[in-house]
Amino acid sequence: MANKYMSMRNLLFWLFEVHKAEELFHLERFQEYDRESIEMFLQSIKDFADAELFPYFTAMDIDPVRYENGGVVAHPQLGNIIPKAAELGWFGPGFDYEYGGLQVPESIFLAGNHILEAANNSAVGYLNLTTGSANLILSFGNEELKQTYIPNMVAGKWMGTMALTEPQAGSSLSFLTTSAKPTGQGYYQISGQKIFISGGDHQHAENFIHLTLARIEGAPEGTKGISLFVVPKYRPAENGALEPNDVITAGDFQKMGQRGYATTHLVYGENEDCRGWLVGEPHQGLKYMFQMMNAARIDVGATAASTATAAYYASLQYANERSQGISLKPSGKKEGQTLIINHPDVKRMLLLQKAITEGAMSLLFECARLDDLYREATDNKNGDYHMLLELLTPIAKTYPAEAGQRAINTGLQVLGGYGYCMDFPLQQYYRDIRIMSIYEGTTGIQSLDLLGRKMVMKNGRAVDLLVMAIEETIHEALEYNTLIPYAKVLGDKMRLTDKVFRHLAAFAQKGNLEAFLADATVFMEFAGTLVVAWQWLKMGIVSSRFLVEKQDDDFHQAKLHTMKFFYKYEVPKMEGLSQVMLNEEQLTTSDKVKDFF
Amino acid sequence: MANKYMSMRNLLFWLFEVHKAEELFHLERFQEYDRESIEMFLQSIKDFADAELFPYFTAMDIDPVRYENGGVVAHPQLGNIIPKAAELGWFGPGFDYEYGGLQVPESIFLAGNHILEAANNSAVGYLNLTTGSANLILSFGNEELKQTYIPNMVAGKWMGTMALTEPQAGSSLSFLTTSAKPTGQGYYQISGQKIFISGGDHQHAENFIHLTLARIEGAPEGTKGISLFVVPKYRPAENGALEPNDVITAGDFQKMGQRGYATTHLVYGENEDCRGWLVGEPHQGLKYMFQMMNAARIDVGATAASTATAAYYASLQYANERSQGISLKPSGKKEGQTLIINHPDVKRMLLLQKAITEGAMSLLFECARLDDLYREATDNKNGDYHMLLELLTPIAKTYPAEAGQRAINTGLQVLGGYGYCMDFPLQQYYRDIRIMSIYEGTTGIQSLDLLGRKMVMKNGRAVDLLVMAIEETIHEALEYNTLIPYAKVLGDKMRLTDKVFRHLAAFAQKGNLEAFLADATVFMEFAGTLVVAWQWLKMGIVSSRFLVEKQDDDFHQAKLHTMKFFYKYEVPKMEGLSQVMLNEEQLTTSDKVKDFF
Repeated sequence: MANKYMSMRNLLFWLFEVHKAEELFHLERFQEYDRESIEMFLQSIKDFADAELFPYFTAMDIDPVRYENGGVVAHPQLGNIIPKAAELGWFGPGFDYEYGGLQVPESIFLAGNHILEAANNSAVGYLNLTTGSANLILSFGNEELKQTYIPNMVAGKWMGTMALTEPQAGSSLSFLTTSAKPTGQGYYQISGQKIFISGGDHQHAENFIHLTLARIEGAPEGTKGISLFVVPKYRPAENGALEPNDVITAGDFQKMGQRGYATTHLVYGENEDCRGWLVGEPHQGLKYMFQMMNAARIDVGATAASTATAAYYASLQYANERSQGISLKPSGKKEGQTLIINHPDVKRMLLLQKAITEGAMSLLFECARLDDLYREATDNKNGDYHMLLELLTPIAKTYPAEAGQRAINTGLQVLGGYGYCMDFPLQQYYRDIRIMSIYEGTTGIQSLDLLGRKMVMKNGRAVDLLVMAIEETIHEALEYNTLIPYAKVLGDKMRLTDKVFRHLAAFAQKGNLEAFLADATVFMEFAGTLVVAWQWLKMGIVSSRFLVEKQDDDFHQAKLHTMKFFYKYEVPKMEGLSQVMLNEEQLTTSDKVKDFF
Repeated sequence: MANKYMSMRNLLFWLFEVHKAEELFHLERFQEYDRESIEMFLQSIKDFADAELFPYFTAMDIDPVRYENGGVVAHPQLGNIIPKAAELGWFGPGFDYEYGGLQVPESIFLAGNHILEAANNSAVGYLNLTTGSANLILSFGNEELKQTYIPNMVAGKWMGTMALTEPQAGSSLSFLTTSAKPTGQGYYQISGQKIFISGGDHQHAENFIHLTLARIEGAPEGTKGISLFVVPKYRPAENGALEPNDVITAGDFQKMGQRGYATTHLVYGENEDCRGWLVGEPHQGLKYMFQMMNAARIDVGATAASTATAAYYASLQYANERSQGISLKPSGKKEGQTLIINHPDVKRMLLLQKAITEGAMSLLFECARLDDLYREATDNKNGDYHMLLELLTPIAKTYPAEAGQRAINTGLQVLGGYGYCMDFPLQQYYRDIRIMSIYEGTTGIQSLDLLGRKMVMKNGRAVDLLVMAIEETIHEALEYNTLIPYAKVLGDKMRLTDKVFRHLAAFAQKGNLEAFLADATVFMEFAGTLVVAWQWLKMGIVSSRFLVEKQDDDFHQAKLHTMKFFYKYEVPKMEGLSQVMLNEEQLTTSDKVKDFF
């Protein structure tokens, strides 16, 4: 297929023009890289995606994962994807050289991931979960665990999962009951059930390594009693062979979308012979898991934004090929039917998709850069980088998921009736992206995290850092005449944010947590729009500078135009959202409301 | 299944309390009815839906319509539904007694339809299209056509379709090329192709009557040269037998949702033996078709609102059964996990669904009442009723389709991961409703109709009528202390609407049609929110009156609460939308924008 699903030009724009990835190559860990070598690496990923992922996007939906004879059968193509991804170094590309990694920055991982997820969002989860769970072992496991598992995972022979959710404990992990009984033999006996385990089984890997949260017998209640275990599907025996570890794949949830991606139900220890190896210290499991969880949240945001990017290009292609209706320009009648891209409403729908997806991707690159800096920077601001990343993470997960859905919905609409038909990919993108606001903490959970935890942590230090970063952007923007009006709008919205937050925080100060957090989801939409407006102003600055200092080109003019679009069509909604939050009426907190349904 | 999919209590509220259906029984045509007989009629429909429709909602999705051996095979249950619907009088319930109808008002048809569509939106289209196309023959066909077709259609033996769309002519019907050649023998020879023909074929009917738009040879170009024909799949021969009429079902479009509902591709006259009978006068076809089209638009709105209603009850049931998380109320920790309905964000999600679906249904009943009055009223205001109906029709189609989608999306979110799984119906409602903003004119087309045609027709007479109606509601609301703040908000929004419209109309006055209409879709969202706010204030008045004059009950308190919710959470968005429209920047009209994608 020659169809476009992402733009390499945009990728380089975000990476090198807006988020200055070249600065990262001055850091010791990344010193072997330069722009050229990274461009080559990304091109190799694009070639892989072109050949092995994108052509199977529809096929993996039509011939979905199925549960058969106690195991999951995934699409045959997955059997080609995994070894080729390993060859590319896609399992743990950020890992140390000594563990088979490439030591690429997180920013580069995100760039590669954007290509892959845009090409085929069902296939890539298998790969990235393996990287994430291997990384958890690397970060917190002992040497034996590392030696046993990492090489096989980096080689793509063994795949990894994160096993958190239980039937009674989804959003509310503190109620999980999977148990771990000490045996005195270096391992624990695991017993329990996990559901919704993404990538939890298929026929194309020798082994599955489930990074599993469980409660050691006698552990404290709640989140403080949760430990992390490595629980392989097959455990390595003394002779190097693999033997079954009493973890049964009991089923596969059939989903509306991402139908090429397994979502399993696991049963541990039905025969009291399931062994788990403790990772790190007892009772620290949730803290460890949050390393993977935070990365997974960024990953979900990236999957959403990348899926929406692919949908945008599919709708753009249609708009450029389909004639329908007459232009309302004075010459319209004479010219007969026109390409639908000539209708303002279609241009609006395309620009909306562009504004959302590119804004979301830029926000994700902001986060990836912070991740790189907090780990590797030598300017002593690592704590600040980390705190700002913590604040932005729930937004960088939620904005792409929620607004990306709206973008794809708009893309489907561009195709009219054809958008609803299985012959065109828009309906699949529409189904696929819908899970992104549920995976790794629903939008409701992310919103509680943002407003109830991140906005107030360390006396608002993270918020101060964000304010400073945005103010710096506004300050820079004021140097360009074209940008002044937008910089002023962003400044106004900053003041509005402050007003709204103070209003909400007053409830918390009075001890009314419920009222403080009741409209957290509204606050999330508000905050998401704010930070993406910030990203667009950043992109506007870079583009204005290019246009002034280098040359006039459509690429950078397009960025300015799309920035203007975002400020005209998206930013004004903050006004209405602020009215919702400033309204004193309490309509969702009283118990009485339950009688009204 | 004992699950609730709609509320009979709400139905009676809209019909008799808010929209005063009893007044209709004073009109001559409806004089045989009273509230009691109508309630019995609706109960019989509910019983039918409980037994024959709702239990097959999932089954018709899992075992969808398929194309086999030149024809469509629909779910077997459709073979039970059709004769039972005929027995109930559901084919043309509003038709004259002499044509087998029940002469029920349009308002009652809507009420029954709400029940049926909420129960199973895939099945009901087959029935309603038959009524709609029979009605077209009744209204404009000659006696022979009526005698030949109506009795069989009312009996549910022959089914009807509307055949407009062609591969190159969807939104832009004036480019249709299906041709009709006069034969001098009372019929025309039809040749061409039609696509996206809903309910176009299946094994459970003897015959299909395609109400087909075609161009008589030598007819003028554009919409003025379109005529309407009855083109049966099998034509009645002289001996009363049926013989093939050279209309081939060439395929069935596979869709993301409404998978129980056929969407066919028809080929007319491959063997030059396809006969069509002219309905009414030549070249008047589009005008006639708009009778059916306008009814179909209301019907699509009703299907959307009803589907969203069913989704609301499904998510409510889950929220009442699923425990997850701890309440943030001071007593929360002690009580352990709580039902999710106790979380403010879940109450917000449920109230949003309720506010959208009930507001949408009330708007549809407003339209149905206008339809009844314009046809049957004896107060000489028929023209006004008709004009107001014309203005409201695109909104009554679009608001339920667009906001209903948002409602179902929210309902799916209530279920978290389960909402995305095929074991729960939310994902199906989500897929099903997505077509509603495309059927019978996309949201873009409806928006052009609203702003470009309806708002300006007869020098704004329709708008004046709407303004008077809303002002009357505001005036009434001011009598109740509880309602005063909301009445004032609605008044403010009326003034804002006037300001926005004048701003846009100024472009038209300067001859810049493109700029006038570029943001028509934004205007639609704005106008939809306004008229639904009006409906909620109407419901608020009726409820306040009941609470003051009769008794305090949860049902009417719930209506007031939901009204407040709509004004707190939905109405404020009009502020942002107005800013978009008042912004002078033109970002979607220039040709240059095409280079920016």
